[in-house]
Amino acid sequence: MKKDDAHYLRMAIQLAEEGMKRGEGGPFGAVVVDAAGEVVAKGNNRVLCTSDPTAHAEVVAIRRACEKLQHFQLEGCTIYASCEPCPMCLGAIYWARPARLVFAASRHDAADVAGFDDAFIYQEIALPFAERQLPTSQMLREEGLRPLQLWRDMEEKTAY
Amino acid sequence: MKKDDAHYLRMAIQLAEEGMKRGEGGPFGAVVVDAAGEVVAKGNNRVLCTSDPTAHAEVVAIRRACEKLQHFQLEGCTIYASCEPCPMCLGAIYWARPARLVFAASRHDAADVAGFDDAFIYQEIALPFAERQLPTSQMLREEGLRPLQLWRDMEEKTAY
Repeated sequence: MKKDDAHYLRMAIQLAEEGMKRGEGGPFGAVVVDAAGEVVAKGNNRVLCTSDPTAHAEVVAIRRACEKLQHFQLEGCTIYASCEPCPMCLGAIYWARPARLVFAASRHDAADVAGFDDAFIYQEIALPFAERQLPTSQMLREEGLRPLQLWRDMEEKTAY
Repeated sequence: MKKDDAHYLRMAIQLAEEGMKRGEGGPFGAVVVDAAGEVVAKGNNRVLCTSDPTAHAEVVAIRRACEKLQHFQLEGCTIYASCEPCPMCLGAIYWARPARLVFAASRHDAADVAGFDDAFIYQEIALPFAERQLPTSQMLREEGLRPLQLWRDMEEKTAY
């Protein structure tokens, strides 16, 4: 039976606490729920137990949900996150194309309370690449265009 | 022997073409190279063959590199990408903390030539969440703070 947003968001918050207490990673949890209210997948941060910096709760939940559905999109689904997604996770959410996102704590809470870089990365991503703290350069653009042109000219392809 | 940036960037461009031709995903490739010039890991977009929307070339390469190094950071490494990383991948790069990023085609090339959403997602991420096209809401902030506070108060923990 379909529950209200608070129900699923509390589930995400509980996953955050449990995963952290098990030592799997940071204090973050996420749940993917389909349009009928079924929980498709749950995730918590697993950066430490997998040595994978991309194993944030939302990425873990999205990967599990897509594996379960055998599809790279989460049409009609809602993603519940214990904390506002960082840019990596928000990007992953856009690529997965769910219907909605609901979160509890903010990026500033993650920074101010727990010392995470979320707010800093949001600032960096908004800058032109030459102004970022991460040294970044562009070169060989013409050669880099070639795969994009090949994709454009491919007759049978799956858009994602 | 350490090669110049163009060498590794051409490797990333070749991975982009090869992966696309094998039908594994979009036309994107990435290489992680350590400070000594050794290729730590390669990746190409695998969204289609894995049904995983997070399996972008950079994420694939970062995950493989971290698995190989058994560490969640890529200290001293350079990441070469055939195309400017999307916000998800750029976020992943920040979390992995390499020394440098080098890319060839731009986010605008990815959009204009091949129809990908990278530039759109950059626009969205810079907006306050209430103004984004993805319906987003915040609730239960006080409850969401609790895992962050527990993390803050934990005596032995690994920062990442």
